[in-house]
Amino acid sequence: MALISIIQDFHPLNNAKLLDTAEKLRPILHHRIVEPVGAFVLKDRYSPEAEEIEMHRVHHLAMGKGENLCLDFGTHLVGNVTLEFTYTGSHPDAPAYLKLKFAETYKELAENSEDYSGWISQSWIQEEYIHVDVLPAVVELPRRHAFRYLKITTMDTSVKYKLVVRNAECKTVTSADMRKLTPCTHPDPFLQKMDEISLRTLQNCMQDVFEDGPKRDQRLWMGDLRLQALANYCTFRNYDLVRRCLYLFAGSRFPDGRIAACLFTKPTVEADDTWLFDYSLFFVVALEEYMQQTNDEETLKDLYDIAMQQIEITLRYLEFDGTIEKERAANAFLDWNEEMNKSAGALAVLIYALRYARRLARRKNDWSQSSWLDEQLERLKRVARTAYYDEERKCFVSGGEASVITQTWMVLADVLHPDEARALMERSEEFFDCFPMKTPYMHHYYVSALLRVGLKEKALEHMKAYWGSMMETGADTFWEAWDPEHPDDSPYGGAIINSYCHAWSCTPTYLIRSWFTGEKHSDDRL
Amino acid sequence: MALISIIQDFHPLNNAKLLDTAEKLRPILHHRIVEPVGAFVLKDRYSPEAEEIEMHRVHHLAMGKGENLCLDFGTHLVGNVTLEFTYTGSHPDAPAYLKLKFAETYKELAENSEDYSGWISQSWIQEEYIHVDVLPAVVELPRRHAFRYLKITTMDTSVKYKLVVRNAECKTVTSADMRKLTPCTHPDPFLQKMDEISLRTLQNCMQDVFEDGPKRDQRLWMGDLRLQALANYCTFRNYDLVRRCLYLFAGSRFPDGRIAACLFTKPTVEADDTWLFDYSLFFVVALEEYMQQTNDEETLKDLYDIAMQQIEITLRYLEFDGTIEKERAANAFLDWNEEMNKSAGALAVLIYALRYARRLARRKNDWSQSSWLDEQLERLKRVARTAYYDEERKCFVSGGEASVITQTWMVLADVLHPDEARALMERSEEFFDCFPMKTPYMHHYYVSALLRVGLKEKALEHMKAYWGSMMETGADTFWEAWDPEHPDDSPYGGAIINSYCHAWSCTPTYLIRSWFTGEKHSDDRL
Repeated sequence: MALISIIQDFHPLNNAKLLDTAEKLRPILHHRIVEPVGAFVLKDRYSPEAEEIEMHRVHHLAMGKGENLCLDFGTHLVGNVTLEFTYTGSHPDAPAYLKLKFAETYKELAENSEDYSGWISQSWIQEEYIHVDVLPAVVELPRRHAFRYLKITTMDTSVKYKLVVRNAECKTVTSADMRKLTPCTHPDPFLQKMDEISLRTLQNCMQDVFEDGPKRDQRLWMGDLRLQALANYCTFRNYDLVRRCLYLFAGSRFPDGRIAACLFTKPTVEADDTWLFDYSLFFVVALEEYMQQTNDEETLKDLYDIAMQQIEITLRYLEFDGTIEKERAANAFLDWNEEMNKSAGALAVLIYALRYARRLARRKNDWSQSSWLDEQLERLKRVARTAYYDEERKCFVSGGEASVITQTWMVLADVLHPDEARALMERSEEFFDCFPMKTPYMHHYYVSALLRVGLKEKALEHMKAYWGSMMETGADTFWEAWDPEHPDDSPYGGAIINSYCHAWSCTPTYLIRSWFTGEKHSDDRL
Repeated sequence: MALISIIQDFHPLNNAKLLDTAEKLRPILHHRIVEPVGAFVLKDRYSPEAEEIEMHRVHHLAMGKGENLCLDFGTHLVGNVTLEFTYTGSHPDAPAYLKLKFAETYKELAENSEDYSGWISQSWIQEEYIHVDVLPAVVELPRRHAFRYLKITTMDTSVKYKLVVRNAECKTVTSADMRKLTPCTHPDPFLQKMDEISLRTLQNCMQDVFEDGPKRDQRLWMGDLRLQALANYCTFRNYDLVRRCLYLFAGSRFPDGRIAACLFTKPTVEADDTWLFDYSLFFVVALEEYMQQTNDEETLKDLYDIAMQQIEITLRYLEFDGTIEKERAANAFLDWNEEMNKSAGALAVLIYALRYARRLARRKNDWSQSSWLDEQLERLKRVARTAYYDEERKCFVSGGEASVITQTWMVLADVLHPDEARALMERSEEFFDCFPMKTPYMHHYYVSALLRVGLKEKALEHMKAYWGSMMETGADTFWEAWDPEHPDDSPYGGAIINSYCHAWSCTPTYLIRSWFTGEKHSDDRL
């Protein structure tokens, strides 16, 4: 995720005590050595056509100027690569100059970074140029990469020698502890595979913090964190990592107390100057869900006021009629649809968050707050219905638009009577064309809304169709953005910059394990 | 220097004892911190037009995508650069992706490495692409560079921030000890400056070994070593470094005992599979000159036989008539003129080397060898005169060509009567057009020949004209290849690959200090 916001002289409000607690929760990192399982040579710089090389022949391959060798590490990895080079011919009389291109998907291998002119920094493209001055050499790459494929191109050797790749390995890194994992018990092998891919997605995003994507932005975003935490609770169960991230968000906020949309942790912890209407409210949701899992009263004590502050600040953004100020609502993310009218969706997320806030207040025995939240909840539900529900069309309309995104959030906000909500979700495909959903993030909430109204079969079908279509296209991990109708779309102006292992896409494991393998039928946690 | 030779299954003859002595002579390296003295921005990627930036304003310069900052370190340096970066705007949300271009001369700054298609490896072009993942950052570049200018281009930052260069410095490295240096006493400021540039050239090539050039090939070549040693004796007086290099050459040779044209010292000492007729003979010359300076009998004891072996092997390459086998003679370097006929020149270098070999034999009281060498010397002088001297044209002709290169070496070989030799050198310009001299290496021998016949004024004039023309073009150090008539020439198919600080060009300091400041008039050491 990345939205542009630049605030001049932004000085976040830092709380040393909270950040100190976060620091103490820094996770243990787990490593594994992975070697490539396949190799091939791309026949042309920008074509995917390849000639396969048997692995035992790789170290017989002598690479001259302009030649390439691609290594396939079998699946998506995050870690540091070490390469061992030697040569054939005379003693090298010049450095080897190499281009290393790391690709999460096969398609990326043949994409030309020079063609990229999108609005996100090209610095995220995983290409390195290195000089190897002395051969033979063991080159430990200092940067972490996210990839399955590594293309090594010899920009130049010299006329006297050719380069040989003698060995390659990746030392993976994650804070997910595989030993805590129980296997997926769903009998359908397709769902088992979907679970496995979700888990790999989550695992590769679990680092020092929950990152949004190990290729890009490698950073803690509130919207991603909430979904990662859900998936984590029924898989790796790293509660401390969720706690750490909540303390980080609480520990560095906007000067007025708002939770930032994302955080930097290097060189020091610092809130980004980006605020998203919905993301700050997800702090409340994520804290409540964490408490539900852990009953960790110390954390509640430390973070309760900050959670309530998010609700209070957001309620200040209401107009007299109870709808959200236009500009503030436009600051909701919802999905990668910047042109869509977000007024109704933003209000729905606020109502949704109020429910979680109320649970927190009750847990805290803060009854005055709880009944105040009750009032807000009921008032805003009425506002939502009045302002956005079209009784004739029997759907929500925001700025003239009846998108599935708005319907989804209104259903999750519990604005309608359960029968109305179910009827709406039953015909939800009607709203697909008005701003189609672009990300697994939004598809997750769509599936949640189906589950909330009891449409379990429809939910499962949608999961199989949507995440399943990524699987059919060869996904090792789930992607940041995916529209099966437009496979080359990118919200960033170039698919080469897309992240193909993205936190907010990891939720099938949560959905399968919580809703399709156990006895769970209740909707009260959605 | 770089000539192409690839010998299949080349296994050099290594002598552990000699290499062990060389290892013990590894020099102390001296360091100095140098900061830039000027800054400017190139207006266009490939144009030298620039806008000057005052130094105190550099850290106010915010660089966005595609923008550049050039730093001028005042003069030619060899060392490791450390850059300190920070930013303006929001907290960086993406790495800074930078291109660093190191240039020895201003002209190189605007040259496009992508245009280079010469036969020497482009890996020598001093360009680095780096990602700076966390800002602020102190980036210590791991590779050594040779440069005066550093161009920093931000390939990309992000829309949220711009890059700022807060600090830059170079930690220089050399094994030349400036404290051993006496100032040049010549009253002419132009010659004083020429001496200073020569010294900087030598100093920047004095590393772990005498390198040919710190930009390229960073390697010990025999032809360069001989000239560096001469300059070193009257300046830095690092006798151990010369000794180390002689032991290295002796310690790793061709399987039949020949001294290689150059040596690799990393990862281990290994002779290159390149042999040059003249370069192997310069081992004899360099050893004799080292002995003359040091009277180091231990070294003579260790290396005498190997020196004599070079003469003996070379004498096996003679035809019945005493001329050198065509193919062997073609393996003489002489100068960057691959098309020229080298038969006479190669024979002249052999005769020249015989004189040094005889001095070694006498010093060793090896009288039988000395008188055998006497015989060879007289015989080959006769051969040279008979085979190559055109009595009518009163010059040497090799394969129909009367080049100044051939005349020079025949004069240095002492083949003619002194009066004839002087007369020949007096009209030496006549031979300039037939294969013009391309390198300061050859110009050095030309000046030596003028000195040998007593034409001191003419020698000085030539030095002022030739090395002086580099100075007038802005040289901070003397260049590998330079033809004032064709300033853009490169023996390598692209000036961007030329070395602008090259060992074999450093001899003016030797010439000025030995011939133009003292009382030296004798020619017996030439």
